[in-house]
Amino acid sequence: MKLLHRQQIESILATIDPLAAIETGFVQYSQGKVIVPPVGELLLDKGEMHVKYGYVKGDDFYVIKLASGFYQNHELDLPSSNGVMLLFSQKTGQLVCILLDEGHLTDIRTAIAGAISAKYLAPKRVSAIGIIGTGIQAKLQPQYLKTITDCRHILVWGRNAKKLTIYQQKMQQQGFTVTISDSITELTDKANLIVTTTPSTEPLLKAAYIKPGTHITAVGSDTAYKQELASEILLIADLVVADSISQCLKRGEIYQAITNRQLEITQVLELGNIINDGIGRTHEEQITVADLTGVAIQDIKIAEAIYLAAENNCSMKFKGLNKNYS
Amino acid sequence: MKLLHRQQIESILATIDPLAAIETGFVQYSQGKVIVPPVGELLLDKGEMHVKYGYVKGDDFYVIKLASGFYQNHELDLPSSNGVMLLFSQKTGQLVCILLDEGHLTDIRTAIAGAISAKYLAPKRVSAIGIIGTGIQAKLQPQYLKTITDCRHILVWGRNAKKLTIYQQKMQQQGFTVTISDSITELTDKANLIVTTTPSTEPLLKAAYIKPGTHITAVGSDTAYKQELASEILLIADLVVADSISQCLKRGEIYQAITNRQLEITQVLELGNIINDGIGRTHEEQITVADLTGVAIQDIKIAEAIYLAAENNCSMKFKGLNKNYS
Repeated sequence: MKLLHRQQIESILATIDPLAAIETGFVQYSQGKVIVPPVGELLLDKGEMHVKYGYVKGDDFYVIKLASGFYQNHELDLPSSNGVMLLFSQKTGQLVCILLDEGHLTDIRTAIAGAISAKYLAPKRVSAIGIIGTGIQAKLQPQYLKTITDCRHILVWGRNAKKLTIYQQKMQQQGFTVTISDSITELTDKANLIVTTTPSTEPLLKAAYIKPGTHITAVGSDTAYKQELASEILLIADLVVADSISQCLKRGEIYQAITNRQLEITQVLELGNIINDGIGRTHEEQITVADLTGVAIQDIKIAEAIYLAAENNCSMKFKGLNKNYS
Repeated sequence: MKLLHRQQIESILATIDPLAAIETGFVQYSQGKVIVPPVGELLLDKGEMHVKYGYVKGDDFYVIKLASGFYQNHELDLPSSNGVMLLFSQKTGQLVCILLDEGHLTDIRTAIAGAISAKYLAPKRVSAIGIIGTGIQAKLQPQYLKTITDCRHILVWGRNAKKLTIYQQKMQQQGFTVTISDSITELTDKANLIVTTTPSTEPLLKAAYIKPGTHITAVGSDTAYKQELASEILLIADLVVADSISQCLKRGEIYQAITNRQLEITQVLELGNIINDGIGRTHEEQITVADLTGVAIQDIKIAEAIYLAAENNCSMKFKGLNKNYS
């Protein structure tokens, strides 16, 4: 049994790109090849834990993720989110690997889903990347977009001036030029690849702001009460894509738009089918929306990718060692 | 974060008696102080995994158990059952301890529940311990009964002569005298503390076999289709006790007896209430039955007990070390 700590996982992440594996996962999910039981939930006085698990039929592993949110942890100088993933053999049930990622892999797989959405839906010429929010996803999404677009210009909008300045500095260190937008409309005017990353419960983007030729990836809303996009945006969009249609019936922007009678579920396509068909955006002037609520297949695929890379690293090191002694 | 391997866990088990902790757990469970969400289940081609989790309100930890059964594993010379428990802080969600017990703690907590049942329900004078079956529980139950009764005489019944002989040798090494019964009636005639431990789907014990003054702990049946006791035994019993009434409505001997109209659920008492009241058997001639289907509170309590003992061991060793250098 292999045990990987967060630092080891981060080192491995720097050497691999799990995008292709997660793309394959989305396709398998849309083809009905992925078994994902209902999410387990444990509610506690000071927080909550979710149990997400599943597997791809015929693959080597099944994966369980235990993710927690304890929102008073900052008082103790601890992160509010935490998590651990466990990889088991589909053939024997044996525990193969524990990934003590502290929730980091959930952040990464979410950013990668954003990159996959942009790969199929963003316009070819990205004028600027518009980021709503300054949190973890605001930082990770542009990094994983680097393989999808050459654009290195970020327009960022947020409510907190201090956090915006820190964000600007941090992302400029990552090779971006960063402009702080005074208003959301300034951002929607100049950026045509927009990622919304806030936990807002009131729509931040209105339909009137959105110019033709814009793609929006909505990452922030993953519950039934969060909403970043006015539902009318989904009404005027040429293409609305869900990471999981069944899940988007219960939470996220698509759920909101259906509830507000601006959208019918039959108009929604699933990301895995877009990837499989290889057809997303068909015209530069289209408005497209990807609604990402987070699917267990992403956890399964990234956990597998890290484990396999760790195994490969070990065998490479082992081979190297042998060489020294041969 | 502490990681305990099976060998370490076995060493700790040899130094502690988690019976009192599990007794307290049953009481807390019956008092509604234990939160246990529905069991999660993952079905695979070659096996299955169950996710059991929960916590006692106001305690320090919550516990998740991932237990698997892969019934072709013997072909690969691997055990069919496997498991891991994870202990988290109720205050922060931080992972505190991983117990790589490989399912061993599930076996132990089941044996301890048998001892607790006997403590409150067995007659004072145990003539012989009757064991139906020769598997893991057949071996563990008498060992944990050692603190409950002075009786060291086992009558064992099983279908496989070779396994019976091995069982006899093994248990004699543990300080028991072991007689192999030719028939179940020989066993029920001579033993008045009987533990049934088989996965039988047909009743092995009939009501006519059971003498006054007998206690039966039924451990084998933990599903809706397994049954070791004829339902009429529960009809004639003076006292029928469930580890969890809600669970025994869905599986085990009580479920069978209710389905067969030999018992009403209002006649069933819950083990935690028996412990709390301190009143179980009130007369030597009573017939009593305890139906144990396994409750998550047992997992929670044994995981906590192991972790706390490991912490205590460490600090003791640390103190010892300091002493050497002082």
